[in-house]
Amino acid sequence: MKKLTVAFQGELGAYSELAAREFFHANVEVAPRPVFEAVFAAVKSGKCQRGIIPIENSLAGSIHQNYDLLLRHRLHIVGEIKLRIVHTLIVNPGVKLSDVRSIYSHPQALAQCDRFIRGLKRARATPVYDTAGAVKMLKEEDIRDGAAIASAQAAADYGLKILKSGIESDHQNYTRFLILSKQKAPRAPHARTSIVFATRNVAGALFKSLSVFSLRDINLLKIESRPIQGRPWEYFFYLDFEGHAADPPCAKALDHLREIATSLRVLGSYEKGRDADGRIHKR
Amino acid sequence: MKKLTVAFQGELGAYSELAAREFFHANVEVAPRPVFEAVFAAVKSGKCQRGIIPIENSLAGSIHQNYDLLLRHRLHIVGEIKLRIVHTLIVNPGVKLSDVRSIYSHPQALAQCDRFIRGLKRARATPVYDTAGAVKMLKEEDIRDGAAIASAQAAADYGLKILKSGIESDHQNYTRFLILSKQKAPRAPHARTSIVFATRNVAGALFKSLSVFSLRDINLLKIESRPIQGRPWEYFFYLDFEGHAADPPCAKALDHLREIATSLRVLGSYEKGRDADGRIHKR
Repeated sequence: MKKLTVAFQGELGAYSELAAREFFHANVEVAPRPVFEAVFAAVKSGKCQRGIIPIENSLAGSIHQNYDLLLRHRLHIVGEIKLRIVHTLIVNPGVKLSDVRSIYSHPQALAQCDRFIRGLKRARATPVYDTAGAVKMLKEEDIRDGAAIASAQAAADYGLKILKSGIESDHQNYTRFLILSKQKAPRAPHARTSIVFATRNVAGALFKSLSVFSLRDINLLKIESRPIQGRPWEYFFYLDFEGHAADPPCAKALDHLREIATSLRVLGSYEKGRDADGRIHKR
Repeated sequence: MKKLTVAFQGELGAYSELAAREFFHANVEVAPRPVFEAVFAAVKSGKCQRGIIPIENSLAGSIHQNYDLLLRHRLHIVGEIKLRIVHTLIVNPGVKLSDVRSIYSHPQALAQCDRFIRGLKRARATPVYDTAGAVKMLKEEDIRDGAAIASAQAAADYGLKILKSGIESDHQNYTRFLILSKQKAPRAPHARTSIVFATRNVAGALFKSLSVFSLRDINLLKIESRPIQGRPWEYFFYLDFEGHAADPPCAKALDHLREIATSLRVLGSYEKGRDADGRIHKR
């Protein structure tokens, strides 16, 4: 079986890589990219068959930049996976917890482990651009008085040692990732559909838009608003609902929404994601 | 007339200071604070009578951190102002555009002026933590080969020179600011009300929540969702609507919403804001 190439943002060992490996199991070749824009470009050009992007975190909320990129690029969402974010403390072999003076990670990961870090009297948090990038730096510069907070996958990728696992303050920490492709997903039995639409700026327009789903007992899973460039205080609405866009009630609801909305695009119908726990994937 | 003390986040010359001066006219004493949290704390403790925070930008979207802080702190929203963001290029006296090699500003301001910056062949963008902070740095370190992007107010505050004004790529660039107080606002004739609520995680709950307004012809102005900590994929909804919470139809709608919502709080009813153009306020 030929392996799929999947683009993700970040260094090897990033949570996006872990999510890709959970979603595609062994059947994947990962392709790191420096920015989200480059993930979309890699799929668009055909260089990678799939892309994976984080879209929301259960503590921090939506990654709005990726909502904007979904609108700008004409790719299809073909899957999702909800990954529990398990942060680990990673050091070079031989480094002990008492040696650690600096803890390197992305500011959001540092914030999510603030209780653990405050418990370490002699170490202070030092923000860097990326969780896995912090691990790479530890290794390349052979830092003996520092540790990184990143995924267990990052420790495995760079051959470093995990001192402690599950150091996040709140274990109910999940990130939902979307899988992107140039082709639509095959029909899924338990589908979720993502759309984006805009309405006229009139009283009740949003309510009417949502009514097309409620009148047909279609369950709404998420709503997100983003500003429309050049039209201050008007918004695009990103909506997720249960069902496939081709299911008769959903298709009718979308037809109905087209009467009300000034623009409407189906971003994708895809199998509803399972929850995954971040295990290590050896290569 | 005794001047009001108003806390804002940032250095003197920040857009928040400008918004405060537009809102309160001469009748204000501004109190800079390093972080948004400290703005809320200053009002809560009574050290400042008012606080001002940015809540959304017409290009970048909502400032989600401030939505979370509104929920956490029990302050009242008592006013709003929509400020057009006019970015200016600021230098030390005597510095010419051809001398400039580095342009310092907040990453978002740099991004908003990307067209102008790309037009300058020999200068490159250098991100710093704050727009007004960049101006302060230029002055303190007497930088002769650099410029800052910030408000005209910042140039006035630090006695520096404006080389060019209105350098933003998109002039439809507005930021909406909220005014915070420990007391409710006096009754306003043209009011806007902000609330936050959560619903049971059942089909149609959001639709039912919005219906309480639509059934009474109350116009919805904005909806924003934020994750509920510890309950993955459940959300708080922040809703703005036209009218005062004490107006009979609005009061009925809120009563009705209380039947549906698991939690509901009125963040404030306040006079709808005017659009303001960022002029310079001399002190």
